[in-house]
Amino acid sequence: MIMMDISFKPIGVIETPYMDYAPYQPIEDDEGEFRIIVNSEYIEGLKTLRRFKYIYVLYFINKLKGKAEMTVKPSWLGAVAPSEGIGLFASRSPLRPNPIGLSIVRVKKIEDNIIYTSGLDVFDGTPLLDIKPYIKDLDSKNDANFGWLDDVKDKKHLLLHIKGIPHDY
Amino acid sequence: MIMMDISFKPIGVIETPYMDYAPYQPIEDDEGEFRIIVNSEYIEGLKTLRRFKYIYVLYFINKLKGKAEMTVKPSWLGAVAPSEGIGLFASRSPLRPNPIGLSIVRVKKIEDNIIYTSGLDVFDGTPLLDIKPYIKDLDSKNDANFGWLDDVKDKKHLLLHIKGIPHDY
Repeated sequence: MIMMDISFKPIGVIETPYMDYAPYQPIEDDEGEFRIIVNSEYIEGLKTLRRFKYIYVLYFINKLKGKAEMTVKPSWLGAVAPSEGIGLFASRSPLRPNPIGLSIVRVKKIEDNIIYTSGLDVFDGTPLLDIKPYIKDLDSKNDANFGWLDDVKDKKHLLLHIKGIPHDY
Repeated sequence: MIMMDISFKPIGVIETPYMDYAPYQPIEDDEGEFRIIVNSEYIEGLKTLRRFKYIYVLYFINKLKGKAEMTVKPSWLGAVAPSEGIGLFASRSPLRPNPIGLSIVRVKKIEDNIIYTSGLDVFDGTPLLDIKPYIKDLDSKNDANFGWLDDVKDKKHLLLHIKGIPHDY
């Protein structure tokens, strides 16, 4: 067992319209402006990033406090959740031992040190940890599956929730 | 600009056959055993994880020391790299302001607190930060692109390097 303190510092901040509420996953076309402000010392590091359609955004989930429970029942699962709960690491719950958030968003434009993106599922003011390019052949796994989500009766409905697509049923 | 210290602790350790050398990206079927040992206090968090074909592994890149340069020329690009270099955040270089590694691997089996995976591109003894499920509809972007990699003349050859597929030309 490794014992060490790992220390990071924000390299920027994420600005979103989400103040008191944030969706569980990115809502691609949500209203409002989503901007990643990278500290000016890192501006050169954004070179050629615009060429990518999608990027990974890693951030520190600092607004949600609470103990990470090892089994969770995501609230968006509602009544359809497996009754025994699912393992934390088989979930995307934000309450984790190391609260590192990971979202994939579309790059709209980059101006100086500001990246304008599609909907980003984080609270306004979230500290940015890293940005990585999402590379088609490396990151897009066509043979990926849905894991335990396959057990859920109305998966189609569930996916609307996961993807944050508005629907009225 | 946000100033804060963000502190994480390893939740486990990654064991690989890579002692002095590690590939640049996961080699799916590389020889040797790749194991993620999760600290025993988190064992319940692995429940239902086995149902996923792929997982994200987040880890602390602790073996590579050096300053993060804002433009990089990945060594595997060799002579075909854009001469002006690319932005660090448009690359997967391990030398980053916050050296958080992100790999997608296939789950082979899980026994107690040990996850056996396909090839993981990290040095033996790498501290584990988080595990997240890779969910098909959420993480597999069919319309993703190759960014600046499209500029590279022999992209097909390059992708063999990126994917770590052995080849002799």
